[in-house]
Amino acid sequence: MQNYPESLERLIEELQHLPTVGPKTAQRLAFHVLSQPASQARALAEALIEVKEAITACPRCGNLAEGGECLICRDPSRDPSLLCVVATVRDLMALENSQAYHGLYHVLGGLISPLDGIGPDDLKIKALLERLRTTDVKEVIIATNPTVPGEATALYLRQIFKDQPGLKVTRPASGLPMGADMEYADELTLSRALSNRLEMGSQN
Amino acid sequence: MQNYPESLERLIEELQHLPTVGPKTAQRLAFHVLSQPASQARALAEALIEVKEAITACPRCGNLAEGGECLICRDPSRDPSLLCVVATVRDLMALENSQAYHGLYHVLGGLISPLDGIGPDDLKIKALLERLRTTDVKEVIIATNPTVPGEATALYLRQIFKDQPGLKVTRPASGLPMGADMEYADELTLSRALSNRLEMGSQN
Repeated sequence: MQNYPESLERLIEELQHLPTVGPKTAQRLAFHVLSQPASQARALAEALIEVKEAITACPRCGNLAEGGECLICRDPSRDPSLLCVVATVRDLMALENSQAYHGLYHVLGGLISPLDGIGPDDLKIKALLERLRTTDVKEVIIATNPTVPGEATALYLRQIFKDQPGLKVTRPASGLPMGADMEYADELTLSRALSNRLEMGSQN
Repeated sequence: MQNYPESLERLIEELQHLPTVGPKTAQRLAFHVLSQPASQARALAEALIEVKEAITACPRCGNLAEGGECLICRDPSRDPSLLCVVATVRDLMALENSQAYHGLYHVLGGLISPLDGIGPDDLKIKALLERLRTTDVKEVIIATNPTVPGEATALYLRQIFKDQPGLKVTRPASGLPMGADMEYADELTLSRALSNRLEMGSQN
């Protein structure tokens, strides 16, 4: 870490701000950049700046957008009577990649977690209630993680949705992941999988 | 990988040009950039561009420099009678980090490797001979890797140095790495370690 020219030292330092990039990896990445044509470093630099300038939050659902509403909210083929509540944009992307969902989304921007000082007011719950009031949503799927904060948030939402007559509130099934080995599954997952067992033939 | 806004898609693509960064890592890095203040993305972008503009090869030894000679060549405390020949700048940095060497360097820019189409003329060997002719080097340490191309390059250099009267040519010892377990050492390393054995007390 000595005798590097100043500009290289600075690049190595900046690269270390990225997650999972330590000093060694930052060095390797920096040397790679040095060995590549300047056009490639410039392309990455421009993409970095542009992404911060262009990307905004969709004012309707909180998904990533480039000015105005996101691609999902603007898609007329999506079912507006289905609303899936997720904690983060990354959860939304994961659901999208499964290609199993064709309704709209609402991104909370986090989960209720008193230990981290995050309460309901820190999440986009008011906007969610407003959305439910002003649009014709028939079912809300609360797709928060099956973890302590995720379950707490789901229970909280379930509670405040009680005032919405005729609104169906669901939660994705939890149980054994596909391809899992029972032997290595944790007790909580196994007990969930058992208590939520389905009659064969009723699964699709 | 769908429904990402265009600028995010581009950043993910550019990040994948970095070594060891696949689609998943690129996504994680890109989302991290999104979550950080714009100033941080800008700092990284500027460091990327600057490093390509500022870093040049030292005209004397081939080390990284910022215009003119490198920090090592300019350091009057280095011993100019010792010259260490390395394949790459990264090898030079590794030796520097060991803090065990205080002479000058010469970076070949690669190793002789006929299978990859790299011959002696592709390396900075002419400049090395010129340096030996014009300066007062007493010992050349050929610090190429103990691999097939590294050994081949060392033998080739040994051969052409024969014309230099009084020049001492050495090679770093090869043997068991410190902290190694004999049981797991490969045969070649063990046989090297045995044939290069040193009388105890002569080691420092």
